[in-house]
Amino acid sequence: MTDYQELEARHKRMSAIGGALSILGWDQSVIMPEGASQSRAEQVSALSLIIHEMQTAPDMGDLISAAENDGGLDEWQRANVREIRHDWLHATAVPADLVDRKIKARSASELTWRSARAEDDFAKLEPQLSELLTITREVAAVKAEAFGCSLYDALLDGFDPGRKSAEIDVLFDELMSFLPAMLDEVLAAQEAAPDILVPEGPFSTEAQEALGRKVMELFQFDFNHGRLDVSLHPFSGGTPDDSRITTRYADEDFTQSLMAVIHETGHAQYERGLPKAWRGQPVGQSRGMTVHESQSLLFEMLAARSPEFISYIAPELRETFGGSGPAWQNENLVRLYHKVERGLIRVDADEVTYPLHVILRYRLEKQMIEGDLAVKDLPEAFREGMRELVGVAPETDRDGCLQDIHWPSGAFGYFPTYTLGALGASQIFQAATKADDTIMSGIAKGDFSALLTWLRANIHGQASKLMPGALIEQATGAPLGTDAFKTHLKARYLRG
Amino acid sequence: MTDYQELEARHKRMSAIGGALSILGWDQSVIMPEGASQSRAEQVSALSLIIHEMQTAPDMGDLISAAENDGGLDEWQRANVREIRHDWLHATAVPADLVDRKIKARSASELTWRSARAEDDFAKLEPQLSELLTITREVAAVKAEAFGCSLYDALLDGFDPGRKSAEIDVLFDELMSFLPAMLDEVLAAQEAAPDILVPEGPFSTEAQEALGRKVMELFQFDFNHGRLDVSLHPFSGGTPDDSRITTRYADEDFTQSLMAVIHETGHAQYERGLPKAWRGQPVGQSRGMTVHESQSLLFEMLAARSPEFISYIAPELRETFGGSGPAWQNENLVRLYHKVERGLIRVDADEVTYPLHVILRYRLEKQMIEGDLAVKDLPEAFREGMRELVGVAPETDRDGCLQDIHWPSGAFGYFPTYTLGALGASQIFQAATKADDTIMSGIAKGDFSALLTWLRANIHGQASKLMPGALIEQATGAPLGTDAFKTHLKARYLRG
Repeated sequence: MTDYQELEARHKRMSAIGGALSILGWDQSVIMPEGASQSRAEQVSALSLIIHEMQTAPDMGDLISAAENDGGLDEWQRANVREIRHDWLHATAVPADLVDRKIKARSASELTWRSARAEDDFAKLEPQLSELLTITREVAAVKAEAFGCSLYDALLDGFDPGRKSAEIDVLFDELMSFLPAMLDEVLAAQEAAPDILVPEGPFSTEAQEALGRKVMELFQFDFNHGRLDVSLHPFSGGTPDDSRITTRYADEDFTQSLMAVIHETGHAQYERGLPKAWRGQPVGQSRGMTVHESQSLLFEMLAARSPEFISYIAPELRETFGGSGPAWQNENLVRLYHKVERGLIRVDADEVTYPLHVILRYRLEKQMIEGDLAVKDLPEAFREGMRELVGVAPETDRDGCLQDIHWPSGAFGYFPTYTLGALGASQIFQAATKADDTIMSGIAKGDFSALLTWLRANIHGQASKLMPGALIEQATGAPLGTDAFKTHLKARYLRG
Repeated sequence: MTDYQELEARHKRMSAIGGALSILGWDQSVIMPEGASQSRAEQVSALSLIIHEMQTAPDMGDLISAAENDGGLDEWQRANVREIRHDWLHATAVPADLVDRKIKARSASELTWRSARAEDDFAKLEPQLSELLTITREVAAVKAEAFGCSLYDALLDGFDPGRKSAEIDVLFDELMSFLPAMLDEVLAAQEAAPDILVPEGPFSTEAQEALGRKVMELFQFDFNHGRLDVSLHPFSGGTPDDSRITTRYADEDFTQSLMAVIHETGHAQYERGLPKAWRGQPVGQSRGMTVHESQSLLFEMLAARSPEFISYIAPELRETFGGSGPAWQNENLVRLYHKVERGLIRVDADEVTYPLHVILRYRLEKQMIEGDLAVKDLPEAFREGMRELVGVAPETDRDGCLQDIHWPSGAFGYFPTYTLGALGASQIFQAATKADDTIMSGIAKGDFSALLTWLRANIHGQASKLMPGALIEQATGAPLGTDAFKTHLKARYLRG
C-alpha cells in the first residue's frame, strides 16, 4: 500500500464514522426521546474523538508529505491530498486542551442561550458568551499562526475554505452601494401596487406534507436514497446516499414549509450529486458552506420562486388546499412569494433584505473576533446596526442579538456564507440558463431535469476538486461577484 | 490510572460505539431508505471493526491479567474483570481471517435465504448454508480449544454464558417426559369445551397503536427514554437509556401486535433496569439471551396472558375496538389467549407447543455442529422431527426448515435460550409472586409496579454480576428447572 493509499483507507474509515455521526445527529433532532440526551452525547463524543485521534495521528503529517511527493497521482488524487492537508492543518493547529475547553464552553453557552432567548435576558448569556468568545479568539490565534492569516480569516476558512475577508469586504461594499436604495425603490413600488393577499388557512399537515413530497419529486429528490421528516428547525442531514431532510408545518401558512422543503432539497441534491467514485474522501465532499448555500438558494430563490414555476405550481396549490378567490390567483401568489419587508428576523427575511441582516452580523462578529467589540456591548451595537442597515430596530434582544444560535454555539465566521451563497446562486443560475435555454422552459413546466443535469456536471460532480472560488469561476466564467445578483433582484423586484 | 481503570475507560468507549451501532441498526430496520444499504453497511463495518480492534489490542491480555491481580477491587469490579476476560476470550479466539470469512459467508447465506424461503427452494440455499456451517464449525473448534469445551457448548456460550448442553439435555428430557402427554390432554380439554371465538376485525392501526402505548404505560415503559415504532419483525433495540421497541400491525388481528408490544416491553424494561452505575461496562450488561427471554416471556406469558390481566384489560379492548358480543366476553378472551394447537410455525406457537419446536431445532443444530447431520439432509430431518415432536409435518420447506433466519445467519446455539427463557420466566414469576403477594393483586388491577420493583431488585439491577445460572438461583432459591413451568402450564391449561 502506498502512503497515498494508506491516507485514502484512513479517510474512508473517518468518513464512515462521520456518516454514522450524521445519522445519529438526524436521529437526535427528529426521533430521539429526550431522556436519551446524555447517552447520545457520550456516543457522539466517542465517535468524534476517534475521528480526531485518527486525524491527528502522529504519522499523519509524514504520510501527507509523502503523498504530496508522489508523482504518480492524477488530478483528483492530488486535490484529495490538498484537502487532506487542509483538514489536517485545522485538526492539528488547536491543542487538545483548547479543543476540550471550546467544546465545554460551547455546550454551556448554547444551553444558556436557549433559556436566555426564551426569557429575553441577554445578561444571563453574557458571561458564557464572553468566555466562548475568548476561547474562540484563542482558537483563531493558533489557526491564524498555522495558516498565516488574520484571526477572522482563520475562522472563515473553516466554513468556506480559502475565502478571505478582504474579498468579502469588497463584495459587501458593492452590495451596500445599491441595496439600500433598491430596497426603498422596491418597497415604494410594492406599496403603490394593490395589496398582497394572504391565502387563509388552516392548512392540514397531511396536505402540506403531500404537497412537499410532490414538489421534492419534481426537483428529482430520490426517495430511495432519502426521507422527509419533521423537526423544530428545517435542516438537511444524513449522507450522500441517505439524505435526511426535515421541515416543520404551520397550520396558518403553507408557504413556510413548502419553501423550506425546496431549500433543503437543494442542499440534499448537492450531496446526492457528489461523485460516487470519491465517496468517503475529502475531495469527494461538498465545497464548503458558500457553495452549499448557493445550491439551496438556487433551488428556492431562483428556480422555485420564479414566476414561471409559481404559475406552474399555482393550480396544484389551489387543488391541494381547496383554495379559490383573489388570494389564490397566479398573479397574487407570485407577488406573495416576492414580498419584501424590513423585518427583524433574519430567517424570515426576503432575498432583498437578507444580505443586510448578514452584513450587520458579519461586521459585528469581525469586530468581536478582532477585539473591537465586547460581548456586553453587543445588544446595543446590534440594535444600532439594524436601525442603520435594515431600517428597523428590535425592541427586545430576543428579536435582536439573541435570535440566532450561531454565536452562542461558537460559529463565528459562518454568517457571510449565506450572502456569498446568494451571490453564487444568482451567478450560477445565470450561467446555467445561458448555457442551456431549455432550463427555464423546463422550470415553467415543472421539469427540473435540465437544470439538475447542468448542476451535476458543473457543481455537484466537481465536489472539492477545486477551491470554492475557482469552482465558481470555472462554472460561471467569472469570479464570484454581485452583478448577477443585482440583475436578478432588478428583474424580479423592479419589473414594473 | 490503574490497569483496571484503563480497562474501564476502554470498555466505556466500546460501549458507546456499540450504542451507536444499536441505534443505527434500529434506523436500518425502521427508517432507512433502501438505497442507503451499502453506505450503512460501510458505517456498521467501520464501527464494528473499531470495537474488534480495541477488544483484541495487543496489550489487552496483560491489562486483564493485571486487573485480575488487583487486590483492591470490590465485588462488582471483580465481576467486571471476569466479564471483560470472557468477552476478550471470544474476541481473540477466532483469527481475523476466519472472522472475515464468517461475515462474508453469513451475509451471502442470509441474502440467499430470503429468496430461497420466498420461493420454497431449499436447494438454492444449500451450498451457502453448507459453507456457513463449515465455517461455523471452524469457529466452534477454535473457541472450544480456547474454552476447553465441546464444539456446541463453545457456540452456546456466546448466547448464554457458562451454559452447558449437558444441562440443557437434562432439562429438555424432563420436558419431553411430560409435555407430549400434557399437550394431548390440553387439546382434548380444549376440544371438549365450546368453540373459541375470534373477534372480527378489521382493527385500525391507529387504535391498535393507541392500545399498545396504553399497555406499555401500564407496564411502566418510560417514553422519555424510549419509543414504539413499526418494523417487519418486532424487536427491542436501542440502549438502556433509549429503548427502541417495534411491532407490526395486522388489520384482522389485534392480539398479535398487542402481545408483541408487551413481549418487547419486557426486553426493554430489563435493559432500562440495568444499574446506572455500571453503564458502559460489561458487568453492567444484560445477562445473556436466556435471562433476556425470561424477562420478555414473564411480561407476556406470565403477567399479560394471566386471566387476571386479561379480565382487567378486556373492557379496554371492547372500548378501543367497539367490540361486543360473545367473542368479546372476558371468558372467551381468556380462552383465546390460552389457545393451544399443533402448528407449523415456531413464532406463532403457544407456550405449550413452543418448547417442542425448540427441542427439535436444538437437536438438529447440535447434530449439524457435531458433524452428524449434513445440510442436504436437513429438510427431511426437520419434517420427520416435526411429525415426531409437534405431531404435524410441513408440506413445504418454507413452512419447515426455511422458516427461521437463525441458521442462515449463522446463529447456531441460540434456539435453546427461548425455552430456557420460558423455564426461567415461570420460575422467576413464581418466586416473585411468592415473595410479594401484592404482585398478583396488582396485575389484576393493571398495576405492575410491585412486579417491576421485584424484578429491578432481583434480576435487572443485578446485571452481569453473577453468571446466568447463579443469578437465577439467587433470585429464585433454586437452579433453573422445569417444575415451575410445569406447574404454570398445569394451572393455566388444565384448570378444568
